[in-house]
Order: sequence, then structure tokens, then C-alpha cells
Amino acid sequence: MFAAGRPHIAIPGPSVMPDAVLAAMQRPAPDIYDPALIAMTESITADLRWLAATTHDVALYIANGHATWEAALHNILAPGDEVLVLVTGHFALGWADMARGLGIGVELMEFGRNMPADPDRLESRLRADGEGRIRAVLVCQTDTATGIRSDIPALRAAMDAAGHDALLVADCVASLGCELFEMDDWGVDITLSASQKGLMTPPGMGFVWFGPRAAALRERRENVSRYWDWTPRARPDDGLWQYFDGTAPTHHLYALRVALDLMKAEGREAIWYRHATLARAIWAAVDVWSEDGPLRIEVPDRTARSHAVTALHAGGDLGERLSRWTRELAGLTLGVGLGHDPQSAWFRIGHMGHVNAQMILGALATIEAGLQALDAPHGRGAIDAAAGVIATASRTG
Amino acid sequence: MFAAGRPHIAIPGPSVMPDAVLAAMQRPAPDIYDPALIAMTESITADLRWLAATTHDVALYIANGHATWEAALHNILAPGDEVLVLVTGHFALGWADMARGLGIGVELMEFGRNMPADPDRLESRLRADGEGRIRAVLVCQTDTATGIRSDIPALRAAMDAAGHDALLVADCVASLGCELFEMDDWGVDITLSASQKGLMTPPGMGFVWFGPRAAALRERRENVSRYWDWTPRARPDDGLWQYFDGTAPTHHLYALRVALDLMKAEGREAIWYRHATLARAIWAAVDVWSEDGPLRIEVPDRTARSHAVTALHAGGDLGERLSRWTRELAGLTLGVGLGHDPQSAWFRIGHMGHVNAQMILGALATIEAGLQALDAPHGRGAIDAAAGVIATASRTG
Amino acid sequence: MFAAGRPHIAIPGPSVMPDAVLAAMQRPAPDIYDPALIAMTESITADLRWLAATTHDVALYIANGHATWEAALHNILAPGDEVLVLVTGHFALGWADMARGLGIGVELMEFGRNMPADPDRLESRLRADGEGRIRAVLVCQTDTATGIRSDIPALRAAMDAAGHDALLVADCVASLGCELFEMDDWGVDITLSASQKGLMTPPGMGFVWFGPRAAALRERRENVSRYWDWTPRARPDDGLWQYFDGTAPTHHLYALRVALDLMKAEGREAIWYRHATLARAIWAAVDVWSEDGPLRIEVPDRTARSHAVTALHAGGDLGERLSRWTRELAGLTLGVGLGHDPQSAWFRIGHMGHVNAQMILGALATIEAGLQALDAPHGRGAIDAAAGVIATASRTG
Amino acid sequence: MFAAGRPHIAIPGPSVMPDAVLAAMQRPAPDIYDPALIAMTESITADLRWLAATTHDVALYIANGHATWEAALHNILAPGDEVLVLVTGHFALGWADMARGLGIGVELMEFGRNMPADPDRLESRLRADGEGRIRAVLVCQTDTATGIRSDIPALRAAMDAAGHDALLVADCVASLGCELFEMDDWGVDITLSASQKGLMTPPGMGFVWFGPRAAALRERRENVSRYWDWTPRARPDDGLWQYFDGTAPTHHLYALRVALDLMKAEGREAIWYRHATLARAIWAAVDVWSEDGPLRIEVPDRTARSHAVTALHAGGDLGERLSRWTRELAGLTLGVGLGHDPQSAWFRIGHMGHVNAQMILGALATIEAGLQALDAPHGRGAIDAAAGVIATASRTG
Repeated sequence: MFAAGRPHIAIPGPSVMPDAVLAAMQRPAPDIYDPALIAMTESITADLRWLAATTHDVALYIANGHATWEAALHNILAPGDEVLVLVTGHFALGWADMARGLGIGVELMEFGRNMPADPDRLESRLRADGEGRIRAVLVCQTDTATGIRSDIPALRAAMDAAGHDALLVADCVASLGCELFEMDDWGVDITLSASQKGLMTPPGMGFVWFGPRAAALRERRENVSRYWDWTPRARPDDGLWQYFDGTAPTHHLYALRVALDLMKAEGREAIWYRHATLARAIWAAVDVWSEDGPLRIEVPDRTARSHAVTALHAGGDLGERLSRWTRELAGLTLGVGLGHDPQSAWFRIGHMGHVNAQMILGALATIEAGLQALDAPHGRGAIDAAAGVIATASRTG
Repeated sequence: MFAAGRPHIAIPGPSVMPDAVLAAMQRPAPDIYDPALIAMTESITADLRWLAATTHDVALYIANGHATWEAALHNILAPGDEVLVLVTGHFALGWADMARGLGIGVELMEFGRNMPADPDRLESRLRADGEGRIRAVLVCQTDTATGIRSDIPALRAAMDAAGHDALLVADCVASLGCELFEMDDWGVDITLSASQKGLMTPPGMGFVWFGPRAAALRERRENVSRYWDWTPRARPDDGLWQYFDGTAPTHHLYALRVALDLMKAEGREAIWYRHATLARAIWAAVDVWSEDGPLRIEVPDRTARSHAVTALHAGGDLGERLSRWTRELAGLTLGVGLGHDPQSAWFRIGHMGHVNAQMILGALATIEAGLQALDAPHGRGAIDAAAGVIATASRTG
Repeated sequence: MFAAGRPHIAIPGPSVMPDAVLAAMQRPAPDIYDPALIAMTESITADLRWLAATTHDVALYIANGHATWEAALHNILAPGDEVLVLVTGHFALGWADMARGLGIGVELMEFGRNMPADPDRLESRLRADGEGRIRAVLVCQTDTATGIRSDIPALRAAMDAAGHDALLVADCVASLGCELFEMDDWGVDITLSASQKGLMTPPGMGFVWFGPRAAALRERRENVSRYWDWTPRARPDDGLWQYFDGTAPTHHLYALRVALDLMKAEGREAIWYRHATLARAIWAAVDVWSEDGPLRIEVPDRTARSHAVTALHAGGDLGERLSRWTRELAGLTLGVGLGHDPQSAWFRIGHMGHVNAQMILGALATIEAGLQALDAPHGRGAIDAAAGVIATASRTG
Repeated sequence: MFAAGRPHIAIPGPSVMPDAVLAAMQRPAPDIYDPALIAMTESITADLRWLAATTHDVALYIANGHATWEAALHNILAPGDEVLVLVTGHFALGWADMARGLGIGVELMEFGRNMPADPDRLESRLRADGEGRIRAVLVCQTDTATGIRSDIPALRAAMDAAGHDALLVADCVASLGCELFEMDDWGVDITLSASQKGLMTPPGMGFVWFGPRAAALRERRENVSRYWDWTPRARPDDGLWQYFDGTAPTHHLYALRVALDLMKAEGREAIWYRHATLARAIWAAVDVWSEDGPLRIEVPDRTARSHAVTALHAGGDLGERLSRWTRELAGLTLGVGLGHDPQSAWFRIGHMGHVNAQMILGALATIEAGLQALDAPHGRGAIDAAAGVIATASRTG
């Protein structure tokens, strides 16, 4: 009814893409033997290192985020090896299953659906692994389903404290390009991400950064899949095709180049501050709404909340009804619950990548309208509160 | 700082364009002798008639809105003829000057900058013109600078009551495709509009609808400019070139076709209701803001307010400072004051064409953030009120 | 049957547009009060002066080429003034009619459909105009219908020899950006062009360059149309709107900026040499075809042939049948005859703007295929000959 | 010098893409939970089955063609299993290496670089494999490097004659959508292809069609990679994500949908006839060129030549010099030699997908110009001959 305008798809990925990123794909197929393409790809790998704050290698894949799980595991582990998966929501379970598919032994350490990974439990478990059977610890910096963000440096410290030499593998699909991440400083061995969230590019590319300890494990592998093998991808010596083991994803490269240009122009710290502020604006609104009614954010601990995605409990089937109202009547598409029970009680807001204050405030005000339209009890003044967060941050930022 | 996302340019035209409209221009030059182009142009004129609710002719011009002023005047008036211009803000003055450039005598009837044209004054003036020197009455349905909307049927009734046979010429550049307009039912002789506002297409095309009384005046003209002559444009018999007296604006035609498709799919009444509701949401927010502070809408009378553009007085230089804050920090570009004194005290919101609830609520919530950031006094709860308007309308619409 | 690939629309305008030009239009409406837009428009006028080789003024119009006829005439002439129109094909007749529409007296000097304007006849006529009634001489550098190119410097010399002070007005719609033109060196008073041919931009903008003698005539005009008045357009002092007397054609400006960037990168001389060579390749092919059969170029004198458009006589209804074959079976759209009798005997090739050797050779080879398919008599080896022209030019250029 | 127009990148993939395909990617990220996306994906799989002429399953991958090699092998074979690779040029060697990376035993059967796979040799080898150690026979229908096309039905017949139950796996990356292929009628067990050649879509998607015998082998596999596993991809029951084991390649799906629409509108037979005719036009030109000089097509046997790609030997370093000339001077980019020695003697023409007569004739005529410019000996009249092929086909097709 009031939706006939520019829609805002506020799902937690694929995220809103800048016009310039899309425009970069609006071009004919290039000559894939043009040296300019290799130079552009080199510049992309350089900037991906900048983004992850690492001097190590990065391999590019035509893939989605799940594929990077398999790519990373395959490069370092053989059937029979074991991993410890820190489960903070939904996606770690898929990752664990991916490992099982490769014949890898999986041990789950579960933290529920609203708590981050606990470094103390990790340390205890690793101390108990005297034989060093656990080859890698797998953790999502942010779980896209729940919005839980784990403390990667604290987990690294726990591993160090335990004196265990398992690799630390961090899935940053939902966090990279949105919030603080320092691969080398934090001692992350392998970082994973993909194009379609903080990187503001259509889905279709995945990235695996790997440090020297990971590279060393790769060297010990036999029968490495040519397609997953990260070595020639990270250090190609025979043309563009080696970056991708075959035809390069030319149009994604052009798009990603533009996205990285935008990110470099804004700066990592500015990007983080923007996301942090917008996340806090959302939290402030929900704080007000929850004063009178059931609306609440899934993750109670603010320090464990993602700055890129927020899962909200509305109760009953309000998550579903509210989402339908905002989409059909107001032009705002919210994310559905994922792994939530009942799903209809939940909804998610994606606030990652190409998002600014007017978009997020518009989403919140639209939710306010929906709550009113559906006669859902909720505290008033939420948008003023959210606006206040941004107003304050604008003076101190 | 928090602007690095999709911008919202909320100026009163050129307005936000649907992706599909822009995409329609992303094509090679067509063969301008392809009969399909003529068929498409015919479909456009048919739908432009539907939009203006007329069975009469419409001429298309490669032009902006100002050009349609000249085109219309030139077709019906010769040097020495006289017109009465009803001035309700800014643009009528430009129109009057356009008439003077053609050697036409101009009489201004001014209504200030926050009142619509007064039918009674019009009737009185026409009654006094016993000789019938006034050939046409020129009025903007909506003045883009002030947001004043005049009551066209009431003006027509005044003309009828006076028994005067001047033509009624309505500039609907800022209103057509946004709010109620019925050319034939309202007795409008000539209607003017352009592509870049309610019609959601890039600037570059103007439209002149003209009824039989206007056409009759045209027939009496000598030395009619070939370019402005609306006759062959409205009734071409020799190919596409005649619609435009030369090369057709091919890419605009493709874009306009898509825009009209979208409008027909939504329906005129639905479009009007959407604009009316979003306008009322803006008014509701300003009502709250104005409870504590100087913020106010230029036009006090709600029945005289445009549903497509709103001019706001913020006082001091707050209009300018607020606009800078929303643009630079939040991704929202507001319109500057136009003809306002001092300009820096004012700003305008464009809410025409491709706008939905989440966009307008986002704009309002961003203004709220800016008011807070700039410590500008204002009443609280404005966005809740605006959301309430939409919530209520969604149940009754 | 063999057309399902990228089409080549080889009509004499609108011409093939570079992808980058189209991509520049794929953007949201900008803030028309953004100073960057004014700066971009200033850069466009500067580069349009570069292109026409003039230090004088240029006015931009939202218009097609025909509109520039009217704009130019209106600025310098009043009803009752007289012009001499040099007719070398089709379009000068339309221009003459445009003058009549403004009440201007028109004298035609006709040169048939395959000869350029004759400087001697012009000189004689002007010598006979002792009273100086002829205020302007109007001539198309290239006639788009016939491909006749007149010798502008020779016409200027004739005017000078006659000691006549009429203005020289050159329509360069089909030639500017394709071949040698030097407004100031050649003593042209007013130059006209449009966006959709050599300038490689969608139709919708027209340009009028005018020198001091033309500006002086404008100053003597009364009742100058505000829309056509070139003075504020060329020397605006109140923002972007003055360039266009109202809303600017924002998307065309972005496109034109890119087109001019491409032209500046290639260079005027390189552009001319490219067009000259490709034109000669076409002529070489036709020379061979005409060795056995009726195919011939309309303009026999090579020095009077356009480098941007070529009209060909195929005889019978072969022009029409050949064009249908190339379009439906091979993906090549040729231009129809214009003002030719019978039209079906003729076709035209547009070779203006964004054209390169592979496009023109492909068009010629496709015509060869069509001639064979239709069993039309023609000499063999035409494409080898055309290729030879390019091969030779590539070594000496 | 004469290249400043629309370029033609005539490399054997990524191929020229229709404007409509690219335009389909110019859109914001969709809601990946929108049922319309699932319906569109289902329609894509249906049409991919139509294209391959199979009633069996197809799995879609975010991947390039090489990845489909690995995906297919992994689904049916375990380390230690053996395959027979029929090597007809370049790419089968990469495929063989991909198998080795999975721990699969590889036996190469080589046919040189200009001959198709020999069914007799295949039959003999299979007869000798009494134990049935060979689990699969891998063959490229068309080798992109050499342009060799093998006779798939004949190879199937040889396998049947040998009474061997190895699977027949056909790589159709360079052939599907270009020439005759009938998966079910021909008894192919697994077919592989990718988006960027005959399917006219940017690189980034790969496809694996698999029949019941292949599916049965998959069922016997343990530790199947979750990412490569084709079962849930072909028969998803839990939403869009299962088609792609994670985030779907949304923008590629929109593009591919349009490409398939175009293919269905043209029809499989028409597509094949177009490609066959254009290929024969190329051959006819080379026949003439080779009458005086070294230019020749790599594959002498016409029945073994691809209709989508042609590798040509020019001798010396003429391949490289000619390619540079056509690219820099004429706007035509030819493919480099691949696996050829010396590479500089060779070049390739891609004539796959979105190609029509005017494009191919333009490419040939440009090569003619280059040969002349470089003083390379060659027979004359080649383009007339090529045109003749198309002319004749246009009358009989």
C-alpha cells in the first residue's frame, strides 16, 4: 500500500550493494588474457589483506561462504583428523557437518543461542587434549542467525594459555568489513569470508586468508583437491586462470574492486565506527520497545552482540506478521528467523555493509509503524532514542 | 560519518527513480524507423491521457518543465495578448516572465507564499474584464518552492461563475502522478507536466495536454514555431520524427514507458492515497516538533498543502545546518529553500513519485537525529506520530 | 536466422553509444544544487568549445537538432528578416521551414541531391544583395540524408569575397565529432550540433555555439523567448538551472561528460583520421561492387562526401530488400533512404561516432552476403578492397 | 588507430553477452527467502535439462568449469578408483590432473592435437579391461584450445560394443548451447558445462547433469563432500540455500534466466544451425586464405571441428602480430594460442553464444585487413567466400 518506492532489503546478506558496485558488472566480457586483469586481481588480494589486517596469503574462490569452510578444512586436514567446533548459534553446526563430510572427526562445544564462545571452557578442553588430537578450533566471529559475536582475541589467549597448537580458524563471513578484526594481531591462523555481506558485492566469491602455520599443514597434505588447493590461488605464477583454477569470475572481480575502493576511501576505523553506532541505535530502540512488551534482542550481553546483524524476538507470531507488514505495506524486507523456534516469533535485521543512518532509522521507524498497525504492545519513543545515539555519536566520533 | 550507504536524495525533483526505469535506458540506440518505436510512443501518449484523466490531445517535448510553459503559451497566444498569472509562491513568477519573453502582456495576482490561489479574487477580477482581454489564467496546481497546492476545480468554478472564456492552464509539473488531478472533469484547458517528478523518469521530457478550446486558439495563430507547434506532435502522420519535430528522445521513451507501466500497475487512486498518507505522516511529525521550537510547515492550511513537496521553516540558519548534517552524516539530502528569505532558515522535503513508507519515515527520523545533534529545540515523539499515521492508514486504506 | 547476436544498428544517428556513456546514466537522480554538477557542466562547455575549435560561447539545450535550428534563428532574427538557405539534400528544407515558422523570409538556393553548395553561386547571390537583406546564410556541413558535405571555408571565402556581412550558420549535427571542423578559423558565426551522432550520447541535447557577431544580433532582439535565449545559458550566473532555463538534463550531462572524455583521450585529429579511413573503406568496397551492377554512392565527388554517413543507390527495390536481409538474417540494421525516390532503391550507412574497423568491415561483408543471397549483380572482391584501405592507412597513419 | 568503437572480444569464452543478460544483474540484492527465487531456480533447472536434452537431474554450482570436473569426479569416485581420459588437445590434461588430486588413478589415451577421440581405440582398451577397473571415461565434446570436437555417440557406441559399464562423462563447457548434444539419446551419464560460453552469462556458475547410473555410484560413496554433493543440489527440500549449499548466486541466476529465455525463444535447432553456418563461413575464409600462404585451421577434418571455437595456425609469430594488429588497430580481440608451440604462431576465434553473421564476417574481414597490413601472404577473396556460405545457408535454412 505504501511500499511502491525504493525497497530496503534489510536481511543479513546478501546485503545492499552500492550502485557503483553493480555498475561495474555492467560490461562486456573482457579478454581474460589482458594483463590488466591480473593487475586488478593482484590489487584485490592486496586490499583483502589490508581489510583482514594480515601480511599472509589469501586465496580467492568462486564460491559462497560455505565453500570456504570446505576449502579451508580440506587444505589443512585429512580424513581422521579432528576439530573442535565452538557453536554459538546456527552456522557452526553447518560447518561441523561440512567437516564430517570430509571424514574429519568433529567435537562440538555448545554455548547456546545467545552467548558467545567461552574462552575458559575452550582453555579447559584444550588442556585436556594432551595428545594434541584437536588440530583446529573453528569459530564464527559472528553467527548470522543469532547475531552472537565471540571474542576472538580472548579465544586465542585461551589457546595460548593452554599451550595447545591447534589452528584457530575464524569464519568472518558476517563480520569482515563491518567490525574490528585483526588477523595477525589476534593470532588467527585462517580467516574466511565471502563477497555478499560486509564486502557489498553480489554473492559468488569466497576468500580464505591463511598464515604460515596453516600453510605448513597444507604442505603435509596428500591428494589435495586441485580446486580447493589454496597454494596456486594465493601465489599464482601462470596467469589469471591460476587464481581461480580455471576461468576467473570476471564480473565479480570488477564489482569487488569497486567495493574495496569504497572501503579504502572510508577507512577501516570509520567503517567500524559506523557499524557500531548504527548497531547501538538499533539496541537503543529495542530497549525502549521492550519497556512495554515482549520485543527483545536475542543476545542480552551487549559486548557479545554483532554490529552487523541483530536477531529479535517479538513473541507469538509477531515476527512473521510484522515482517509481512513492513514488506507489503512499507517497502522494508526484514530477515526471517533462522533456527529459531517458533520461527514466526523472530525476525532479523541486517545492518551490514552499505548502510547509513537514514536507512537504519528508516527501518526502525518502519518497525514502529508496523508495531502500531498490528496493535503490538511496545514502549514509545524508540526512534527518538535511536536518533539520539546517532546524534551523540556524530558529535564525538 | 554515518552516510556511507545508499543515499536518499529527498529533493523535490528530480525525484528518486525506480531501478527498472533506469535499467530501461541501459540499451543501445534503436533503429528509429522501427515501427515498434512508434507503437511504444502511441502507448505512452495513451497512458499520459489516462494519467491526466483526459480524452484530449497530448504533445510530447524534449524539454524541461519551463519549456512547456513556453510551448503552451506560444501555441495559444500572440504578442500583445494578455494573461493573468496566479502567483502562489515561486514558479509562477518564472512562468510570467516566460510569457513576457513572448511579448505577452502579464498581470500578476499574488497570494503570498503560504496561501493558495483564491477563487473569489479570481472571479472578481474576471468579472471586471468585460472586454475579455485576459486570454488565459495560469496557475500551478502545486508550487514546488512553497508546497502550496491550489484548488483547481474551485478556480474553474470561479471562472465559470464569472462567465469568462479565458483558458485555464494548469502547471502540474510537481503534482501530476502524485495527487488527484482530473483534467476533463475539472475543465482544465491545458495541462503541463514533465518527466522528472511524479513520473519518476530522468529530466528531459515535458508534456502538454490541450483541449479543444486551446486547439482552436492554436488554429488562429500565425507564424507558429515549428518546434513548439503541438499539432503535429499530438497527431503525427509521418513517422516517429513528427512526435518530436526531429530525432526522438529514444532512451527517455524507454524509461517513461516503464514508469507508466509501474503507475498503471499501482493505479491512480493507490498512488494518490500513498502520497496523501506519506504527506500526512510528515505533517504529523512536524506537528510534534513544533510543540517545542520554531519548526513549522510553510503552508498552514492542510487543505492547501501539496502531497508531493513540503517546505519547512526551521529558523535562524538551522535549515542549512540541518541539511548539511543529514547529508554529510546520515545520507539524506534535503532540498534547499527556494525564494525563501533567509534561505538558510528553510529546507524542503521532496516526497513525490517513487517513495514509500520506509523512505519517508527514514527521512523524518534522520531529521530528528539532526535536530538532536544540533541541539535544536523540538518536541519529542514526532516519529512515533508519523508512524502512527501510516499505521492507521494501513488499516483503513 | 543468423541475427541472434549483438546487433549493429548502422543508421546515421542515433549512433552506437559506448558502454561507458550508457553506464554513466545508470545512477540515481543527483542533488541538482550540488556544486559538483555546475563544475561538471562548466567542463562540458569547455570541451564542447574544444571540439568545435572556438573560443566563443556555447549554449546547451534540452532539445534535438531541429530545436537548435529554431534556437539559433530566434536569437538573431526577427519576423520579417531574411535568410538564404543552401540546400544540399534533405535537411536544409526542414531548416528553411523552421525559419518560415518564425516569420522569417526564406530564399532557397538549391544544389540538387548529390552536389555540395557552390561557393561561386553563393558569392554571386550575395553580391546581388546590395541592400544586405540577407541576414544569414544557412548551410549543413553534412546532410544526413544524402551524405553531401559542403566546403565551409570555401563558402566563408565566398561571403568574404562578396563583402557581405550575413552571418554564416553551420549545421554540424551529422559532422561534428566526425570530421574536420574549425569554427573560429573558418569564420563560422553560429555552429549547431546535437548529442546523438558524433557525440555518441542518447538523443536529447542540442548545442549552439555563437560568436560575437551573432551575439551582437541577439542584443538587438526584442521579445526574446526565455527558453531559446542563449545568453543566460552560455553565461549563467545563478546556478545550474540557468544553463537550461529550468531543470537540467542530469543524466544526459553525465553521459555527455563521459563521451567527451573519450573524445579528448582519442584526440580530434585521430577521430577525424579514423572516420576518414573508414569512409574510404566503404567507398572502396562500393567501387568494386559497382564494377558489375547498379550499386553506387549518391555523391559522386569524393571531396564532397561525408565521412560519417553514406547514401547508396541499389536500384529497383534492392535497397529495401537488402536492408531487410541484413537486419533479419545477419544482425545489421542499415538506414532507410530519406527523401529518395523510390525510397526502396536506397539505403544509408551510418559510420559516425563510436565506430571502428571491425564494425565497418563487418557491415560491408554483411552487405556482400546480402547481395549474394539476393542474387544481386555486383563486382567481387569488395571487402578485400575495403580491408586494403584500412591496412594501408594503418601503416601510414 | 581504428579501434575506438565497440570492441568485439572474439575469444573462446567468456563469450559476448547479450545486453539483456547483463541488465538482469543490474538490480539490488533480493530477499533470498522470497519464494519467487526458488521458482525461478526451478525454472532454470528445467530449462537446463531441456538444453541438454535430458530428463535426469542437474546440480548447479557457484563455480567455473574446472570445478565441475572435480564435483563430478568426487560424486562418483573414491581415491583409488580409476578413470580413462581421452585427450584431444589441452583441457583433458587438466581434468586428468584434477582426478589425480582426488587420489584417482588416471590413464591417458592421447589422440594428438588435431584429431578427435577414436572410438575404435576406446573400444579396444575397454575390451582389454576385463576386470572393469576403469570406472569412467572422460571426454571433452569440444576442446577449447584446439577446437577438436569428438563424436560422443560414436564413443558411447564403442563403450556399448565393448560391453563395458564405465560411465561416460562429457565436458560440454565449450559446446553446450552451440551445437548438437543429446544427453539421454546419446547415453551420456554425466554432462558438465558452465555459464560463460554457449550460455552467454558471466563466468561464475557450473552445471552437472547426472543420470541414474551416476546417481547410483554417488550413493555408494562415503565421506561425500557436502559442497560437491550433487544430491541435495539437484533435489533440494529445504529452500533455496540447498541448491547451492549456502547463499545462492542471486545475480547470476537472474542473468542465466534471461539467457535461457533467449535460447528457448530461438530454439535448439536454430541455435545449432546458426553456429554451424558461422563456423562454415570461417572455414570457407580460411580455405581461401590458405591457397597462398600458411594460414590453416588446426583440425583438418571438418567433421571433427567445433562449431564454437577455431584454432588457427598462422606461422612464425604471425598469430601474435595479427592479434595485436586487430586488437589495437581495429577493435577485434582474438584468442591466444593455448598449449600451442610456439604460441605466437597461433590464434583462436571464439564464435560461441551471442554471435551473428555481421560479427563473424566483421572478424574475418578484420583478419583480412590485418593480413594485408602485415604483408602476410594469403589467398584473396576469403570474405566473399565466407559471405557466400551465409548467403547460401540463408536460402536453404
